[in-house]
Amino acid sequence: MSDTPDSAVPTVRAYVEQHRAAFLDDLAEWLRIPSVSAQPVHAPDVRRSAEWLAMKLKETGFPVAEVWETPGAPAVFAEWPSGDEDAPTVLVYGHHDVQPAAREDGWDTDPFEPVIRENRLHARGAADDKGQVFFHTLGVRAHLALTGRTAPAVNLKLLVEGEEESGSPHFRALVEEHRARLAADVVIVSDTGMWSETTPTVCTGMRGLADCEIDLYGPDQDIHSGSFGGAVPNPATVAARLVAALHDEDERVTIPGFYDNIAELTDAERELIAELPFDEASWLATAASHGTLGEAGYSTLERVWARPTAEVNGIGGGYQGPGGKTIIPSSAHLKLSFRLVAGQDPDKIEAAVRDWVAARVPAGIRHEITFGAATRPCLTPLDHPALKAVVRSMSRAFDGAKIRFTREGGSGPAADLQDVLAAPVLFLGISVPSDGWHSPNEKVELDLLLKGVETTAHLWGDLSAVLR
Amino acid sequence: MSDTPDSAVPTVRAYVEQHRAAFLDDLAEWLRIPSVSAQPVHAPDVRRSAEWLAMKLKETGFPVAEVWETPGAPAVFAEWPSGDEDAPTVLVYGHHDVQPAAREDGWDTDPFEPVIRENRLHARGAADDKGQVFFHTLGVRAHLALTGRTAPAVNLKLLVEGEEESGSPHFRALVEEHRARLAADVVIVSDTGMWSETTPTVCTGMRGLADCEIDLYGPDQDIHSGSFGGAVPNPATVAARLVAALHDEDERVTIPGFYDNIAELTDAERELIAELPFDEASWLATAASHGTLGEAGYSTLERVWARPTAEVNGIGGGYQGPGGKTIIPSSAHLKLSFRLVAGQDPDKIEAAVRDWVAARVPAGIRHEITFGAATRPCLTPLDHPALKAVVRSMSRAFDGAKIRFTREGGSGPAADLQDVLAAPVLFLGISVPSDGWHSPNEKVELDLLLKGVETTAHLWGDLSAVLR
Repeated sequence: MSDTPDSAVPTVRAYVEQHRAAFLDDLAEWLRIPSVSAQPVHAPDVRRSAEWLAMKLKETGFPVAEVWETPGAPAVFAEWPSGDEDAPTVLVYGHHDVQPAAREDGWDTDPFEPVIRENRLHARGAADDKGQVFFHTLGVRAHLALTGRTAPAVNLKLLVEGEEESGSPHFRALVEEHRARLAADVVIVSDTGMWSETTPTVCTGMRGLADCEIDLYGPDQDIHSGSFGGAVPNPATVAARLVAALHDEDERVTIPGFYDNIAELTDAERELIAELPFDEASWLATAASHGTLGEAGYSTLERVWARPTAEVNGIGGGYQGPGGKTIIPSSAHLKLSFRLVAGQDPDKIEAAVRDWVAARVPAGIRHEITFGAATRPCLTPLDHPALKAVVRSMSRAFDGAKIRFTREGGSGPAADLQDVLAAPVLFLGISVPSDGWHSPNEKVELDLLLKGVETTAHLWGDLSAVLR
Repeated sequence: MSDTPDSAVPTVRAYVEQHRAAFLDDLAEWLRIPSVSAQPVHAPDVRRSAEWLAMKLKETGFPVAEVWETPGAPAVFAEWPSGDEDAPTVLVYGHHDVQPAAREDGWDTDPFEPVIRENRLHARGAADDKGQVFFHTLGVRAHLALTGRTAPAVNLKLLVEGEEESGSPHFRALVEEHRARLAADVVIVSDTGMWSETTPTVCTGMRGLADCEIDLYGPDQDIHSGSFGGAVPNPATVAARLVAALHDEDERVTIPGFYDNIAELTDAERELIAELPFDEASWLATAASHGTLGEAGYSTLERVWARPTAEVNGIGGGYQGPGGKTIIPSSAHLKLSFRLVAGQDPDKIEAAVRDWVAARVPAGIRHEITFGAATRPCLTPLDHPALKAVVRSMSRAFDGAKIRFTREGGSGPAADLQDVLAAPVLFLGISVPSDGWHSPNEKVELDLLLKGVETTAHLWGDLSAVLR
């Protein structure tokens, strides 16, 4: 378990250098396909992107590479069995669809005509997520070159969906449908990033999500606030009181049972987070916010990575036009979302929210609550052998650098893989915050992209050893 | 001061009966003019209504009857000096514009073709407010007939505005412009109603109104609730917390100083309110509400008539469309209004609200507060001699019935007259809740309309005596 390069490192690096040009040419070809899942006009491009990837994976050596249909955009599945009888199985997740992009949004060049400037590859999807899917193709070839094998040391599977940028509406059903073929000992998600170019990190978890709409109905129509004000319950007031009651003075969520069984941060985890070179001013700039506010006793990073939240995403009721209108509104509406951390069960949270709301709505107000589909949180224990293997492999690729740990505050389809396949989820991403996901001039750092290749070249052998 | 009819009653009643047919014909002619101030297409009709009224007031005997221009719809001013050197001056207020009305809204007959059914005159404006303005024309003639005078016992002035149904946007300026000509010892507002056909009442006050919009600004744009949720202030949460903090658990307004100097209900006033035949179920039906809620320690009528309130008329922030959107909104907006009672100063309330909000908005949220023009509360002391005169006159018209007291929870231009003219405001209205103000099939009860005539026939002489 070394932090220093070993003899494998120069071997891998030489192989990668030798195939760098062809690899980048192929990636550029893929990036030219505008696979924008959100825009119906690009539906044929999303399909073309899937077909291109399946073809390229076959060319890479995957004996199986299929386009999987969904009610929406197609996904790609590929499989390369190890051949070793007791080899563990690894499923890599990514997506081949991209965010919308147009030159006039502020791009310096055509978003679908990749260009390399200052060792950066600029194109929509360069980092999110085509670049990070594609490093696995050269990665597995480098792994074979390093080990002299004809098949990977693990049963390697890839699932590359085509609707991630549209909220993965059919992803869970797809995973459930193909549960048997997707079965894996560990899932590696390549759709996240690192702290920065100079601070390589591994993400160890994402928060879950439960969200609901609460509709509150008072008078049968808007009524005169002079004639009736002060004597009947106002649904907008009730909505506001629910939101206000969500938190106590320490900004802790007050719903009974909300914090039950959650995985509290250990001292070691808090120390690891505190070691990161966090700068509040630049974080606030990224957040476009003008102040911090959150649960007492936790730092900003702890709050967004490791603590559950209750947020109001939308509130509305009564008159919202210009000027005043002296009414008591007939209804008010709330959109609430709860970010969840390991240990929280979305079903229990939903039940707790329903009870809590029902107990707080006064007589004379009728309410309805509608929950959306929940996403579970996922968290990799820091002592998980597979995580240690990822860290070792990454450290080799990064010239012995210390690999630190981050988390994601958001929620994603990784949780569906964790749930349906009952497999731990790990994250391997080499993107950095400056890559501009969803923004004009998205890019990927070529040095980091190739370190992704190197990492996987080391990883499959190491994982094969620790997961047996 | 008698509750029983005296010899004047049969005299007045005979006079009214004699002129009833011509009076109703004239009123019907006025009601045929669709003076809808809210609809630009009816602007010529509103002007025609003013000109018709001025003509009719001259015909009635008023030496002065003028159409007064405003930047919007014209008002009518009329004056009939008493001739007695020390006669007090009374200004009657009403309005000649009406709410929109169309047959297809549910009217049984054309809203601008008056029809009498079962002793009720149906037409838009029959009760609100043409009928209640017009009873003053026959009323002053009956007063002259009763007293044998050639001019009223008071200097009688009428101000009949043309924009009440559009919020009286130019009324205060009009009153200020003509302050000298409008000067009066007492103002009589004929634009309210009574408790019911069987419970004649006098309104003794209206609540005031202060309203504001509060804009709260957080992140520069909507931001991702996963990436940033739990760590930055959410303006929608801040808006909700302001609304929730407006009241304590007794539904009392918490803003410091809010209740300072208010005219508390006396035991006698509370008893008078409690004597009214209040039925909560029918009140709730009128309110279209499904429950009562208000300041602890007060009845529903006390809450809407005599207690100040803070209500949210509108709230909005973040995503309000279908489904969910996991954002922290960049802004949120509140419309608050405060109903005020006697003793409260709108300027002090505004200052108190501004201080209270500023102290509650957290770092990282910017806020702006905009107040509209305030309306002061008005309240007639129960022992005011002019109020006693109104009660006596009304009791005569109502065959010796006990006259009880109500208030109005709403706010109106009466307060502008009180403020600008520094005169007490009294209310004389004979409309009842079933008259359907602003609704289809608006009507006025002919028996009550003529009791309005009778009341004023008695009133001017009595007022002249008590106000000298």
